[in-house]
Amino acid sequence: MEMASLPAHVTGHDLVERVLDEFFDQARARAGKLSPRYLSLWEILQSSARGGKRVRPRILLTAYAGLGGTDLEAAARAGAAFELLHTALIIHDDVIDLDFMRRGRRNVAGAYRDRAEAAGESAEIARHRGLSAGVIAGDLALVHAFRMLETVETDSATRLALTEILEDAMFASAGGELIDIDFSLHPAAPPVEDILHMERLKTAVYSFEAPLRAGAVLAGVDGEVSATLGKFGRDTGIAYQVVDDLLGIFGSESATGKSSLSDLREGKRTVLIAHAAQTGVWDELSGLIGDPALGPRQADRARELLESCGARAFAEDLANEYATRARSHLECPAVPEPLRAVLCGILADAVERRS
Amino acid sequence: MEMASLPAHVTGHDLVERVLDEFFDQARARAGKLSPRYLSLWEILQSSARGGKRVRPRILLTAYAGLGGTDLEAAARAGAAFELLHTALIIHDDVIDLDFMRRGRRNVAGAYRDRAEAAGESAEIARHRGLSAGVIAGDLALVHAFRMLETVETDSATRLALTEILEDAMFASAGGELIDIDFSLHPAAPPVEDILHMERLKTAVYSFEAPLRAGAVLAGVDGEVSATLGKFGRDTGIAYQVVDDLLGIFGSESATGKSSLSDLREGKRTVLIAHAAQTGVWDELSGLIGDPALGPRQADRARELLESCGARAFAEDLANEYATRARSHLECPAVPEPLRAVLCGILADAVERRS
Repeated sequence: MEMASLPAHVTGHDLVERVLDEFFDQARARAGKLSPRYLSLWEILQSSARGGKRVRPRILLTAYAGLGGTDLEAAARAGAAFELLHTALIIHDDVIDLDFMRRGRRNVAGAYRDRAEAAGESAEIARHRGLSAGVIAGDLALVHAFRMLETVETDSATRLALTEILEDAMFASAGGELIDIDFSLHPAAPPVEDILHMERLKTAVYSFEAPLRAGAVLAGVDGEVSATLGKFGRDTGIAYQVVDDLLGIFGSESATGKSSLSDLREGKRTVLIAHAAQTGVWDELSGLIGDPALGPRQADRARELLESCGARAFAEDLANEYATRARSHLECPAVPEPLRAVLCGILADAVERRS
Repeated sequence: MEMASLPAHVTGHDLVERVLDEFFDQARARAGKLSPRYLSLWEILQSSARGGKRVRPRILLTAYAGLGGTDLEAAARAGAAFELLHTALIIHDDVIDLDFMRRGRRNVAGAYRDRAEAAGESAEIARHRGLSAGVIAGDLALVHAFRMLETVETDSATRLALTEILEDAMFASAGGELIDIDFSLHPAAPPVEDILHMERLKTAVYSFEAPLRAGAVLAGVDGEVSATLGKFGRDTGIAYQVVDDLLGIFGSESATGKSSLSDLREGKRTVLIAHAAQTGVWDELSGLIGDPALGPRQADRARELLESCGARAFAEDLANEYATRARSHLECPAVPEPLRAVLCGILADAVERRS
């Protein structure tokens, strides 16, 4: 996601990179003492953590600095914890989705699949070896997300609060992922509210709500401000996810970085699909989506149906509604004006992405 | 593993059960607020954590009480952390080994595979849904192993030391699991030392070495005693693994609880196989093992070859050698006599299991 509104130079972005680099250097040295094979896993894990936009650390740092926090090193370490959680979650999400690529490159599973194929394993066994390495790598990133918080210099009550926020986020994300798997077991499209709930749990909490709350808690502001930022983050996160669903179907490949066919081919449960399932186009639409061989002409027809049944407009309205709700939380007088402006920028970035 | 030498009534075994029950009750309540589907995952996770012998908590409690520790509640909580780590590691190990059963019952992946099959999914998709649920469940147990340590009432330096021991154990186990996957990519059997190193990392550290060190650290004894118990645990753990390799080939199914053909069918890299690979029987033996359809007669022939080439005797000597080494560490005068006796019993249980 583009986050033009997050001024990198004032929010300790370089510090986050330095903290992550130091962490990986130490972990690689530790792994190398156990085995060169293990060192190799850590090298691949480090490389897979590179190239992200560090959205969560930047959001955390923005809240922290905007609420008067001055220990950027501490905030960068808390931000790095969220980045490691993100790394763990996407590695395991890729295992679950059987994806071997991420950001246009091989992910951990992809790298180990290639290695197994080069060693002469069958495609099926190589695939499983890759996924197994992904399970292990995600476990390591997950544990070290929490350990990173121990390096944040603050009092023990604040550190415990940070740990609880990070763990709440992980607990929510695991729940969202599980509900998503359960959805795929049922042929009927779930209702819109269930989709929104799942998307909020799986991504919005740990990407927006939790980093904002963590930044506020670390800055030492009172619980009301932290809760307000949390609510803003929650509604921003939901708006972001709905826009993501729209872009997955109507976005250009150059903007989203993924095939504009993949969500349709997968039959991904989105708010658009949930809406369309309640209309007269469902008979035809349900015959098109979820077909791994769906071609460009059928995709165009599916898009036409999602337009004509009102699903696209419904999702656009929904994203705007959550964005308006998010903005309204910022009217709380305890949110300083400069922070309000930056957060409005983050919201705008989240919902006004190029389609 | 049978641990007759661990007196349950004096080591807070009931406390461990209570701590785990309370933890799962709270987690289920929390998950239930998010979704009934999520509650269901936690119910399956709780059930999969039942029925274990709680070996790691019992070892920790033994060291703690044997070194004069009296806060059994604190020790039970530290022990429960190790039990949750064990739960996480076996769930993910089963995902990696494509096992859908554990202790004679469906594991998490097995329960979700059944559910997907009942929902009409193909066998392949149902299998993957099951494994995906296993990834998520293991992640949750892993994070909560570390969170459990936060509930241990002790000073912050001791709590940090406990966290480091638990994390060292997890770091080692992930490394061992990765090396094991890497072994399977190479047709040649690795040398005996490499097998021992892998087995130590994967299981011995978190099962013996780390719980003993944690019990000593929590009891507040000096670093030398903790290090001595760690060394004892390390050698005991290696001896245990070598005996495990022997039982996997020569043990009776009733004693080991698993098919006496499975290690041979899988072509599992063990010290016996590594030894045999250096002898004249390897040509014939390598043609037998690793065949998923290996029958009882071929298995008997493989066992004959492992006997005649000296691999069985080699492994038996190796287990005895490590057991002797383990016993020698206990001669350290700082280890109290009653604890020494109990630890000798643990060692005897580990190496003298019925074949």
